[in-house]
Amino acid sequence: MTASLPSHLARPDPERDLVIEREIDVPVSLVWKAWTTPAHLRNWFVPRPWSVTDCEMDLRPGGICRTVMRSPEGQEFPNVGCYLEVVPEQRLVFTDSLLPGFRPAPEPFFTAALLLAPNGSGTRYTAIAFHGSDEARRKHEAMGFYDGWNTVIDQMVESIKQQR
Amino acid sequence: MTASLPSHLARPDPERDLVIEREIDVPVSLVWKAWTTPAHLRNWFVPRPWSVTDCEMDLRPGGICRTVMRSPEGQEFPNVGCYLEVVPEQRLVFTDSLLPGFRPAPEPFFTAALLLAPNGSGTRYTAIAFHGSDEARRKHEAMGFYDGWNTVIDQMVESIKQQR
Repeated sequence: MTASLPSHLARPDPERDLVIEREIDVPVSLVWKAWTTPAHLRNWFVPRPWSVTDCEMDLRPGGICRTVMRSPEGQEFPNVGCYLEVVPEQRLVFTDSLLPGFRPAPEPFFTAALLLAPNGSGTRYTAIAFHGSDEARRKHEAMGFYDGWNTVIDQMVESIKQQR
Repeated sequence: MTASLPSHLARPDPERDLVIEREIDVPVSLVWKAWTTPAHLRNWFVPRPWSVTDCEMDLRPGGICRTVMRSPEGQEFPNVGCYLEVVPEQRLVFTDSLLPGFRPAPEPFFTAALLLAPNGSGTRYTAIAFHGSDEARRKHEAMGFYDGWNTVIDQMVESIKQQR
């Protein structure tokens, strides 16, 4: 996978980063829409029975990237950051380490890169979480990164198929 | 000044941010070169008798932005971060809160925005340091932000004039 990474992105480091690669049977154009349309993203972005109660996107570098996640008990967890790169149907990079407008965030945690490539009529889907330390990587892994991110990919594919 | 800020940049906040605005009598094209040419930047980027002993620039979003500053006593202080926006002769935005490749930095401190606009044959020069908290702003101010950044603008103008 590393060979297809654009040269200005960090190389994933097994000590500090977390990577998921999947082949999914929905086309790149619909995956891109699922990630860049708030009403669509709310359908799949968190593992059920959690839900997304609000979502705001300004799809340009420095633009707001905000979701509010709600636990089954009703507690809300806002996440805010900004986009760093928006290359339609290819690459979406965003971070919680900078607030909208590129202002440093009080509690930086990770940068996410979503890389999409056509694979027949489906998509080769790569998601990377870059962290500043192996401690942050371990924390993210212990929070259930692999299970959570894989579950929401399944939910996304299901949601895309229902809308077709 | 705020009126001419591009809409995706944070609005400067007097509690958290530091701003310098100057009219200088060298043209925008040469100010841009002074900021984007390592050999030139080394001439003026830190208040003398401090010096810059190394400088690396990859002028694109996610690209490395690195300088090594040397104290009069010979101690070296490396600074590394990445560029966020590179708009020739208009705007340069970089941060120490993300390492090259957009990886979160272990010790984030500020995002810098340099805004240039023609002013007759000279330049309207605006530099903003965005911080994540008023505590970080106060720390930067106590480190001598205004004196230091104004001194290096004077050094830059002098260096540009010497090279003409």
